[in-house]
Amino acid sequence: MNEYEKIINWVRKYFEENGKGCKAVIGISGGFDSSFCGKILVDALGKENVIGVLLPQGKQWDISMSYDVCNYLGIKYYEINIGDAVSALTEKVNQEMGVDANSYDVYKTNTPARIRMATLYGVSGIVNGRVVNTCNLSEDYVGYNTKFGDSAGDFSLLSSFTKTEARALAKEVDFPMRFIEKIPEDGMSGKSDEEKLGFSYAVLDYYIRTGEIDDLKVKERIDYLHRINLHKLLPMPGYVKE
Amino acid sequence: MNEYEKIINWVRKYFEENGKGCKAVIGISGGFDSSFCGKILVDALGKENVIGVLLPQGKQWDISMSYDVCNYLGIKYYEINIGDAVSALTEKVNQEMGVDANSYDVYKTNTPARIRMATLYGVSGIVNGRVVNTCNLSEDYVGYNTKFGDSAGDFSLLSSFTKTEARALAKEVDFPMRFIEKIPEDGMSGKSDEEKLGFSYAVLDYYIRTGEIDDLKVKERIDYLHRINLHKLLPMPGYVKE
Repeated sequence: MNEYEKIINWVRKYFEENGKGCKAVIGISGGFDSSFCGKILVDALGKENVIGVLLPQGKQWDISMSYDVCNYLGIKYYEINIGDAVSALTEKVNQEMGVDANSYDVYKTNTPARIRMATLYGVSGIVNGRVVNTCNLSEDYVGYNTKFGDSAGDFSLLSSFTKTEARALAKEVDFPMRFIEKIPEDGMSGKSDEEKLGFSYAVLDYYIRTGEIDDLKVKERIDYLHRINLHKLLPMPGYVKE
Repeated sequence: MNEYEKIINWVRKYFEENGKGCKAVIGISGGFDSSFCGKILVDALGKENVIGVLLPQGKQWDISMSYDVCNYLGIKYYEINIGDAVSALTEKVNQEMGVDANSYDVYKTNTPARIRMATLYGVSGIVNGRVVNTCNLSEDYVGYNTKFGDSAGDFSLLSSFTKTEARALAKEVDFPMRFIEKIPEDGMSGKSDEEKLGFSYAVLDYYIRTGEIDDLKVKERIDYLHRINLHKLLPMPGYVKE
């Protein structure tokens, strides 16, 4: 059995054991990871058992890519704009705290991700679903995700694949190149992930797998990001009663 | 050192290692668990380092209890009403899916809890904080909490204490009885936790610690709730690449 077949089997077993008859619910960003996870789910469960959710915040310039993915996969999808919910929350925060919440990067970046999570789970509750986590190992390694936002989910498919490995697998199974080659970006800053991180996925992924890296400054930055983001990967620390 | 002193030390060590100079951010519901966690944090870090967040959804009939707690603790607090954000989201879900989302219990119960989490983390991002999880072992055991909602947090204080044990500890340190004896309820259904669960915390806690229980029907119900909620306690399952 090849790797792709093993994933398919894993998905079927997961649903057999954890959600017989449930739908798989997936947030479709238009990026590679969610697109490829959508394909895996469709191949494993059948397109009638996969529900896509498009979650633009206001106007999303590349939302046509999300439609393209859903149409390619042949799945039913909902488009639920989170803009009003985020604005309503931010307005209350601003009023009560006397701040401009969106001037804090950590607020502006993570709040929409968490509202998306709440929306995905809302849909999932209505359709009797299980929410897939679409993060890959590269993003998880440097914490390029939001705790309790896109890092949430009921099960994960790509969390042990680097971006490079996930793309290689997608090519093997003839996933269309237009989805594989979509440049990863957060859809907010106008910058690609690689520009924001300050290094390429190729360099990061090689370092993750071999420990080797040429640029010592980049190594320090990756190690730093990994260290300060470990709390997203580890179980919640807690006081343990004697 | 007694148990309470050990918790205090644990909190100080956690902040020393994971957030030197950060504020502790706590959602104050007015119920016992968050009130007692507030006291622990104040005793460990000083009241100037603890930020309370009141998170009513529209009108909260017992919000005076939350003010009472914050004033007793002497902490700064913000009151951020999540009603508008939840309504804005629900309206979009209803429109797009053609449903009445609030007619689904799982939606109606869990969505506000997740918006509260997003709000707490929003505040935390603005004040440079760490969010405390206030769940106790009894609630965790039967899954009486929302995944990625009130079960979220950066660190937990009471997760290894049954409700009974947490209350006993609170009495030992002379926490006011009006906070200890607040009847646990979700603030939405008009029913107490115990009415909704169908058994008392006394019975549940005794069963957790001794494995003993008189009523076999209650035992079956507790075992069932525990089994179907295990996914909230265990790490996210995921496919593991070979």
